[in-house]
Amino acid sequence: MKDSPGVVDLLGVLAYAELSAFARMAEDAATLAPSLGDRAALSELAAAEYSHFRLLRDRLAELGADPEQAMAPFAAALDAWHARTKPSDWLQALVKAYVGDAIALDFYREAARHLDPEIAKLVDEVLVDEGRSEFAVARVRALVEAEPPAGGRVALWARRLVGEALSQAQQVAAARPELARLLVERAGGEQADISRLFATLTEAHNKRMAAMGL
Amino acid sequence: MKDSPGVVDLLGVLAYAELSAFARMAEDAATLAPSLGDRAALSELAAAEYSHFRLLRDRLAELGADPEQAMAPFAAALDAWHARTKPSDWLQALVKAYVGDAIALDFYREAARHLDPEIAKLVDEVLVDEGRSEFAVARVRALVEAEPPAGGRVALWARRLVGEALSQAQQVAAARPELARLLVERAGGEQADISRLFATLTEAHNKRMAAMGL
Repeated sequence: MKDSPGVVDLLGVLAYAELSAFARMAEDAATLAPSLGDRAALSELAAAEYSHFRLLRDRLAELGADPEQAMAPFAAALDAWHARTKPSDWLQALVKAYVGDAIALDFYREAARHLDPEIAKLVDEVLVDEGRSEFAVARVRALVEAEPPAGGRVALWARRLVGEALSQAQQVAAARPELARLLVERAGGEQADISRLFATLTEAHNKRMAAMGL
Repeated sequence: MKDSPGVVDLLGVLAYAELSAFARMAEDAATLAPSLGDRAALSELAAAEYSHFRLLRDRLAELGADPEQAMAPFAAALDAWHARTKPSDWLQALVKAYVGDAIALDFYREAARHLDPEIAKLVDEVLVDEGRSEFAVARVRALVEAEPPAGGRVALWARRLVGEALSQAQQVAAARPELARLLVERAGGEQADISRLFATLTEAHNKRMAAMGL
């Protein structure tokens, strides 16, 4: 399984996702945070994304893959997702930091279930949240309690985050069949597995929305 | 010396310098790097700035100071410096990463010479380059060798980096006499010490320019 081109694709898309999340969160922190404390907290998440990127890049190199080449096929889709979901205020930035990344993580977790245990362990290590995003949940709850109409607006926006992510994921899956196969490679037929995957993603998203009081 | 307000000022300005350098380098990496490898290399420097920020913030908290309050007086001057020295291409971004930060570091090193050894050790730890910016030097040399006229233009631009830094530093020194005193607190009179300081800064800058082949 380690030699499957799907594995290099998986580590490549995950590496680019971390590198681009690093840049976007750093920018959101600098431009949207209402205080230096909030700015530091979101910058902390950004820095964590960078250290994940480094783990993945080093692993790609160990596998004999060129990290740049492995990431390149996914840059356009991930950049498009970020461009279409650019937060316009601090509340949106927090929701994106928590929900946006989590959606991507759900995809990767699914793929990791089909991997060589050693690679699966690395992916898990990169994906583990370690409570870092808890600050985002707490801040969102407080902002929404203080101004309930903002909760309705940001909940709609969170739905757009998911919709745009699924749209980009479909394009990536069409272009990279090896990677898509990692997600749906299971007895019982592809269609049933895709339905189960989408149900899992939706359920996880709803739990996160509830955690934020949305 | 630990209780001097100048020490909190020094750690505060250094903390904000790291936090803002983190954001600017992350942005320059995402928007100006010509390849994913270059983007990763400058993002690595940005992430290092963040980890320095964290050390300084934690130290401020240990001293009983509020990190946000300690940083706040310096945000305007550092933001102004970044706004006036925004790189317009990759070569400028590299020169800024190497020279721009180094100028600031020279100031802090001077101040650190007057500090309690424990604080001086932390400042040294934060300031040590560890060869991280060597990639910038190597890339600048290669770009300038390939296109010598670009060297002349970027050398002028580097001079502007220094000029803007001195201009902001003078305003900060006027507004924060305790901090200024850390820089010039020495037998022999303030004026002689300021002259020596400026000579040291200029010499260090010239060495860095030479290292880049400029």
